[in-house]
Amino acid sequence: MVVARYVLGQLRVVDRIRDMVRLAEGLDSKGGLDPVVLRRALASLEKFGQRLRDIPPQRVRVIATNTVRQLAMPQVFLLPAETALGHAIEVVSGREEARLVYLGVANAQPPNPGELRLVIDIGGGSTECIIGSGLEAIERESLQAGCVASTRRFFPDGKLSRKRWNKALTEVAAEFQQFSNTYRALGWQEALGSSGTNKAIGEICAAMKLTKGAVTAQALPQVRDRLLQAETIDQIDLPGLSNERKPIIAGGLLVLEAAFTVLGLERMAVSKAALREGVLFDMLGRGGADDPRDASVAALMQRYGIDPAQAARVRKTAMSLFDQVAPEWNLPQEARAMLCRAAELHELGLAIAHSQYHVHGAYVLEHSDIAGFSQQEQRVLASLVRTHRRGIPKSAFDQIPDRLLARTKKGAALLRLAVLLHRSHEADEIPRVEAVANGDNLLITLDKRWVDQRPLLREDISGEPKDAADLGITLRIGTD
Amino acid sequence: MVVARYVLGQLRVVDRIRDMVRLAEGLDSKGGLDPVVLRRALASLEKFGQRLRDIPPQRVRVIATNTVRQLAMPQVFLLPAETALGHAIEVVSGREEARLVYLGVANAQPPNPGELRLVIDIGGGSTECIIGSGLEAIERESLQAGCVASTRRFFPDGKLSRKRWNKALTEVAAEFQQFSNTYRALGWQEALGSSGTNKAIGEICAAMKLTKGAVTAQALPQVRDRLLQAETIDQIDLPGLSNERKPIIAGGLLVLEAAFTVLGLERMAVSKAALREGVLFDMLGRGGADDPRDASVAALMQRYGIDPAQAARVRKTAMSLFDQVAPEWNLPQEARAMLCRAAELHELGLAIAHSQYHVHGAYVLEHSDIAGFSQQEQRVLASLVRTHRRGIPKSAFDQIPDRLLARTKKGAALLRLAVLLHRSHEADEIPRVEAVANGDNLLITLDKRWVDQRPLLREDISGEPKDAADLGITLRIGTD
Repeated sequence: MVVARYVLGQLRVVDRIRDMVRLAEGLDSKGGLDPVVLRRALASLEKFGQRLRDIPPQRVRVIATNTVRQLAMPQVFLLPAETALGHAIEVVSGREEARLVYLGVANAQPPNPGELRLVIDIGGGSTECIIGSGLEAIERESLQAGCVASTRRFFPDGKLSRKRWNKALTEVAAEFQQFSNTYRALGWQEALGSSGTNKAIGEICAAMKLTKGAVTAQALPQVRDRLLQAETIDQIDLPGLSNERKPIIAGGLLVLEAAFTVLGLERMAVSKAALREGVLFDMLGRGGADDPRDASVAALMQRYGIDPAQAARVRKTAMSLFDQVAPEWNLPQEARAMLCRAAELHELGLAIAHSQYHVHGAYVLEHSDIAGFSQQEQRVLASLVRTHRRGIPKSAFDQIPDRLLARTKKGAALLRLAVLLHRSHEADEIPRVEAVANGDNLLITLDKRWVDQRPLLREDISGEPKDAADLGITLRIGTD
Repeated sequence: MVVARYVLGQLRVVDRIRDMVRLAEGLDSKGGLDPVVLRRALASLEKFGQRLRDIPPQRVRVIATNTVRQLAMPQVFLLPAETALGHAIEVVSGREEARLVYLGVANAQPPNPGELRLVIDIGGGSTECIIGSGLEAIERESLQAGCVASTRRFFPDGKLSRKRWNKALTEVAAEFQQFSNTYRALGWQEALGSSGTNKAIGEICAAMKLTKGAVTAQALPQVRDRLLQAETIDQIDLPGLSNERKPIIAGGLLVLEAAFTVLGLERMAVSKAALREGVLFDMLGRGGADDPRDASVAALMQRYGIDPAQAARVRKTAMSLFDQVAPEWNLPQEARAMLCRAAELHELGLAIAHSQYHVHGAYVLEHSDIAGFSQQEQRVLASLVRTHRRGIPKSAFDQIPDRLLARTKKGAALLRLAVLLHRSHEADEIPRVEAVANGDNLLITLDKRWVDQRPLLREDISGEPKDAADLGITLRIGTD
């Protein structure tokens, strides 16, 4: 955890708390989590929660990465974890994690203008590889190989040998080979490593007097040979290595050696900043005009050829409805932003096919790598798009965390109304729509003359209360 | 059915056989088909089959449209139908049907250069609306409203009244209103109607001396008023109307009146050519350099940003493998073309996400409106992309018709090998790959030195025979 204060345009770190939970150790092959490891995690989160008690929730962002992504039922971890911490936890995809890591590294230590930089971040369960320029990640990859997971996978009984090492190296190298040609073709001027494993190996290189703290192609084999002098993990004796890091250094070193070999690295400097700092910088963007999610929505609109005029009409009406009912329904600003994005993207699926386009749009939004969004946010977006027309399947909100369920259903009801009112894609402005919320009741009042001239609209209106009921809302639509 | 001869760059119709089966009449609300109607259809197809007996199968194209699309289990119809006819039947999507209709109308009667043309084709179960320029369809829509379906839906007991008519008109108009603003914004210089309903109404207008065969905004209400003088469908008395057409003219006229009203039509000429002629012209394209499917594949590659270099590498190897085994496996040219397209599109899903990209690619290919492809062809493409890497789920070929199953699985095995051999995305050419097929056995021989240098490749190779077995192929991979 990092606690920072934003002062004079700068982030000033005021506190760092670090706890090595090794969550990946508790993951079984079926996506279950060992209860001992779960307890270890919850105890740690409770400690962190104490430090966060006085910080307003909108200033806290908690990110879960690879191990939680691998859980068969993430809620089984997330619910007690959020309770212990007292804050919502967002799960981010591997490529989003890669973007955030790059953001952290690049902000802490900006690359030279016009130069490309490779960043390698070895986590517990996954490794992120990024090529970026300035503050932008250009290529982002996430590999299923981290220091904890690789140690467990290749040295499950703790025994080390050169033969085992070479076999393991081939398998981890295969992961890097999937994208190494693309990366090498693009190239980079410098390489940086972040996270605990890379820091530890840099420190070992320095302690062995091989480098002044960087990792090099000459130093790495010497560190590895020294590690392999041990016959078991317990016996590993590397200068500068903490006892806490010892149980997982073998897997971490393996991943780094594979990266050096396959990517042809000569030298990698070590970055102090990584994911957590990236999340802080991302929060700064989210607060202002630079929300990375807005750029992603614009890119999706472009790729899928969404009609911007219709998107703008639906968005405008949806926002007007939202603003009228938000106080009564207690809807936060974040819910407004998600409804706004769903309005802009609701026709995305038309690029695939007209028939069932809401289903296709939801598919793309749920499964795409969308920079800036957590997995839960993508699911909210997908559910809003899925339910913006036609009947609402019972399973439409299954993937939404409980804490977001009520607001997502309310957003869905508002988006449906906005889409319905603009169904004929008329360019003209529609007359003012009044919305009054009262508990789960929603009263919509439309201009009588406008409605009277539109038989299709009248038909749509007559069916809508039934669908709204499936969203838990008692809808009445009248005219004046 | 139309039989034509291609002489001196022209299609010359040598035979037309017409049978009014009214398949849509047999469709129930659960997607089942009335056995009486099924028998009527099979008897008709058997007759047609007799005429086709001496025509080589690759010169025959049989298209099924809306009613077959609506069937819950299309195979229940398609299998006996293909047996009765002696030829494969392709199901096309509504928008593909629209494209083919436009192609038929435009080829028979080319529009003036630079002018836009609206074509309305009222079928039994659906109506296609197209705006095109030259021989190209620009906008294509397919509505769930045809002459048979609308007659059944709005006049199920055969009783006619002005009140019923107006209510029905509102509902059908709503279907047109979904896209009418887009169409009217684009505009058109002339409107043409095709298929039996439009021809019949044109003939009625002429017989009533209202026009010389066109349908106009003045004439149409007079035809409708005359129709509504009857209290039941049996009593309909319209000059120029055949007895065969009488049971379904009410629904057809209803759809046309809705089209005139919503689209603001003044005059619509009648085209003799329609879907069947479009299919003929499409076959000409398919035979040569103008296969419309190639343009669609190119458009998909563009939209989803597929790396053309990697696509070309995989295609080249896949084609080489195909050509070596095609004689033994009896694979037709069409299977080669589908494998070629799958090779070009296999990375499509990367635009959505890296993880499970084969699944995302298959989703897009199965659900997209892709001009030129029948639904079965899209499913073949989707299955090839779905199974090009990782394990092969049991359900991967469920949607493939039996007649295409063996060749699709064999194509999948070849595509997997081609992708595997190029997995590292190396720009260099790979050494010649020998493929020998013998029954269900496939022996692949690779260059020993090349393989020895590639540990990832060796690992991939060692796992491949297991997956090939899931495709019914006994694969051995050796080196020399």
